[in-house]
Amino acid sequence: MSDNYFIGVDLGGTNIVSALVTAEGKLLIRDRRPTHARKGKEFVLQQIKESIRTIFAESQLPAGKIVAIGIGSPGPLNTRTGVVISPSNLPGWYNVPLKEIIQREFSLPVYLDNDANAAAQGEKWLGAGWQVNDLVCLTLGTGVGGGIILGGKIFRGIDDTGGEIGHMILVPNGRRCNCGNMGCLEAYASATAIVERTYEFLQAGKNSSLQKAIAQGGEFSASLIYEHALQGDTLSCQIMEETGRYLGIAIASLVNILNPEMVVICGGVSQAGEMIFRPLREEVKIRALQVPAERVKIVSGILGDNAGVIGAAYVALQGWREER
Amino acid sequence: MSDNYFIGVDLGGTNIVSALVTAEGKLLIRDRRPTHARKGKEFVLQQIKESIRTIFAESQLPAGKIVAIGIGSPGPLNTRTGVVISPSNLPGWYNVPLKEIIQREFSLPVYLDNDANAAAQGEKWLGAGWQVNDLVCLTLGTGVGGGIILGGKIFRGIDDTGGEIGHMILVPNGRRCNCGNMGCLEAYASATAIVERTYEFLQAGKNSSLQKAIAQGGEFSASLIYEHALQGDTLSCQIMEETGRYLGIAIASLVNILNPEMVVICGGVSQAGEMIFRPLREEVKIRALQVPAERVKIVSGILGDNAGVIGAAYVALQGWREER
Repeated sequence: MSDNYFIGVDLGGTNIVSALVTAEGKLLIRDRRPTHARKGKEFVLQQIKESIRTIFAESQLPAGKIVAIGIGSPGPLNTRTGVVISPSNLPGWYNVPLKEIIQREFSLPVYLDNDANAAAQGEKWLGAGWQVNDLVCLTLGTGVGGGIILGGKIFRGIDDTGGEIGHMILVPNGRRCNCGNMGCLEAYASATAIVERTYEFLQAGKNSSLQKAIAQGGEFSASLIYEHALQGDTLSCQIMEETGRYLGIAIASLVNILNPEMVVICGGVSQAGEMIFRPLREEVKIRALQVPAERVKIVSGILGDNAGVIGAAYVALQGWREER
Repeated sequence: MSDNYFIGVDLGGTNIVSALVTAEGKLLIRDRRPTHARKGKEFVLQQIKESIRTIFAESQLPAGKIVAIGIGSPGPLNTRTGVVISPSNLPGWYNVPLKEIIQREFSLPVYLDNDANAAAQGEKWLGAGWQVNDLVCLTLGTGVGGGIILGGKIFRGIDDTGGEIGHMILVPNGRRCNCGNMGCLEAYASATAIVERTYEFLQAGKNSSLQKAIAQGGEFSASLIYEHALQGDTLSCQIMEETGRYLGIAIASLVNILNPEMVVICGGVSQAGEMIFRPLREEVKIRALQVPAERVKIVSGILGDNAGVIGAAYVALQGWREER
């Protein structure tokens, strides 16, 4: 078993990351390249193939040692048919049989899962959740991805669409969300939403050191806001605090519904640490029922931006094992 | 197997219902009596024992035919230890070893579950959900109970507290809930909350045919409001419609998180039918993601107020089978 190798591919709207991983979870080789999503579906498919080919070439392994490929892709998608349906951040993708395309190219079994589920499985396998069997994973990025692991296995629901925690309704009739609904968690706590919420305050004339930084050409991003919060900028601090509270309210509901052992927060925003985690934990403590609130550990992911690619390799490992 | 009989007990704050049920789910005998919860723990325990004794006596079965007892009780409780911790509607109950007490009295194995989980299992076994494996059950009564069935089995979470759908946060900082939190679904959609919301409108001087009915001594209850809504009273109609919308918002979140096949609404309020279900389904359709929203069937429970007692008998059947 330890002689088998797996390739994980983390397909994102911005970057494609591939990696060679052993059955024990050692990450041996990693390839990262821009997705160039705007260049369209065929270009992106070439990028994916090129990235996988690079892993094969660099591995210098004899034929047959790499036994399966796992791909974490933006959803919606169908894990059973291996078709990516219509991801909002991959323009031109509509019912793409990704599993079949990659399978045909490399003559290896390919397993597909959505990116947030892959990240959750990565953190469960080798990350923050390696000792627990029931965890909820939130990935804060362009959107808010969710993955739920119950009894050690990813929870999918009847149509594979379960775990969409980013689309829990936080504020009925609140901020407009990309999904068409209003008030979803994603419309408050994604990196995109953090920037938008800050922008609205700036537009309304609120003072902030961000103004000067942006005027000087700084990229207006969630991490810029975090940096200014660290330097004590009042608006940036307020935004970080409120982000933690929004997350805390949603997590309090999840804690009451699922009574999980752990909640793992992944993605760049989670790097803001206590500035987000303190208000987040406060809200959970105040709002959730006592027993599950005392139980749940709320932690930052520890695999960083490798969670997705490691999780994708795990998807390959699991799929391959199940079919043997 | 068909020669074995099970007793289910549905312990509520108002009534205790016991029943004799076959392994195939035939309800043969039923005993219903007031709980008289205010008379305290010892009195209620006597009522439970008396109710079970009545079932034994009426059954006229030879010894050994009744093989297990299942009890659905208000939580919080621990299914493994069989201890009822501190239900808000059973005054004086604090860490009561209910399983052990009943086991000792009748020398039969006793299995405990919370009332909402019992109702969910009843509707799954013999009710609305008999053909599905993944369902969410909401019981609207004094509170809002929740039960989640995944892969045909009740989902409990790590501490047995999972499924507390009544304590999803619907409106952050909204109406005060019995749990101490604010804005829980229970604070909007329980029978109690329906009466309170109506009362506030009446206090604020809103006109309604309810005023006269109450002045004439009618009990101010959710079913009175429903009756007046049927007769076209504007305020009563508005309250029913809003109740459906509140439920719909919470269910939209659940549909996105759990992608269930079915949502079953139980309890007296669910009898209001389309007056609640139409706005409820509208909200789910508008708010939830398309695939899981199109999948989910949202229906009224069909076991009526027997869901709990039938579910309790199923808890006995399941527990007994697992231990053989």
